[in-house]
Amino acid sequence: MSPAGRRPGKTDTRQAILDAARDCFAESGYDGTTIRAIAAAAGVDPALVHHFFGAKSELFAAAVSLPFSPREVLPPLLEATGEGDDAGERILRMFLGLWDDDATRRRLLAVVRSAVRYDAAAAMLRTFLSREVIGTFVRTLDTPDAELRATLVGSQLIGLAIARYVVKIPPLATASTADLVAAYGPTLQRYLTGNIGIV
Amino acid sequence: MSPAGRRPGKTDTRQAILDAARDCFAESGYDGTTIRAIAAAAGVDPALVHHFFGAKSELFAAAVSLPFSPREVLPPLLEATGEGDDAGERILRMFLGLWDDDATRRRLLAVVRSAVRYDAAAAMLRTFLSREVIGTFVRTLDTPDAELRATLVGSQLIGLAIARYVVKIPPLATASTADLVAAYGPTLQRYLTGNIGIV
Repeated sequence: MSPAGRRPGKTDTRQAILDAARDCFAESGYDGTTIRAIAAAAGVDPALVHHFFGAKSELFAAAVSLPFSPREVLPPLLEATGEGDDAGERILRMFLGLWDDDATRRRLLAVVRSAVRYDAAAAMLRTFLSREVIGTFVRTLDTPDAELRATLVGSQLIGLAIARYVVKIPPLATASTADLVAAYGPTLQRYLTGNIGIV
Repeated sequence: MSPAGRRPGKTDTRQAILDAARDCFAESGYDGTTIRAIAAAAGVDPALVHHFFGAKSELFAAAVSLPFSPREVLPPLLEATGEGDDAGERILRMFLGLWDDDATRRRLLAVVRSAVRYDAAAAMLRTFLSREVIGTFVRTLDTPDAELRATLVGSQLIGLAIARYVVKIPPLATASTADLVAAYGPTLQRYLTGNIGIV
């Protein structure tokens, strides 16, 4: 807060609402969260939340946006994915880095929880993944089966996240990054550039 | 119902309560489900539900039990997992068969939803998987890294289920069983018997 006690600026307020929304959705789920509760957590008037974001569904879409842009982050990771390349390992390391960061893990968990629970949230995630993640794979990999390859990679990564960070099943929950890279790296690399048996 | 209008027997009542519980948990989640609602859905007195299953948590544990016993189903699938074996493919086909069956998919979805949402349910699932599934792997595979191998397999299968049956991401959601076997079979086989890079 500034010395004069002025209200925070537009950008600060918007960010405060987004942060509060993420916390509320993560804690109470989509149905259990109200605009009123988010406004209270952000210390603003509910009307202001509506003003910035419209309906709860729009605020949710804004709140679950990842802390990075896949269309910026992915291309350098996917580049030059030729035989013997380590793009699989690089993507895995980035993915583990996201989940090992407390704040990011909370956001990702909120996304997973909502998608598993609500058809509308699953549809939202499906649209986001198709446009932002798979679309980037398609533009970067430039093979006719890039969409399928992207979803194969995604299916292994989300399964790893659920097993390790949600169900916390041993020994996967406590395996070292090196062990995970040794086990999953070749899988992801094959999904990216190897023979997946489909013509 | 018998001609004389007798109440159904003990086994029928128990089964009716379990079926109702599965429906209620699947639709309303763990917190949103009451013993009273389950009793109403089963057409019995709430006291009878308590009598058969005790607390809600115990009823939940009974309700989410899989429609088969991993310790009976898995060993024949895992047997003789030598080089070039197709245990990976066989496990995948069994898994897809479960998810492609409407009633079973509903049960499995309820388990996944609860585990992703509630730490208590995740702990319950963790215990179940460790005892029943991973335990069976350990007894059947008989290698020192059987536990890790079991969780690697599980992480790919759960990720496939989430991507295909929950998020329904194309083209994975509509891929044929043959395509899935071609893509995932080698992954699962490597996790079971191949080099996973860990000593």
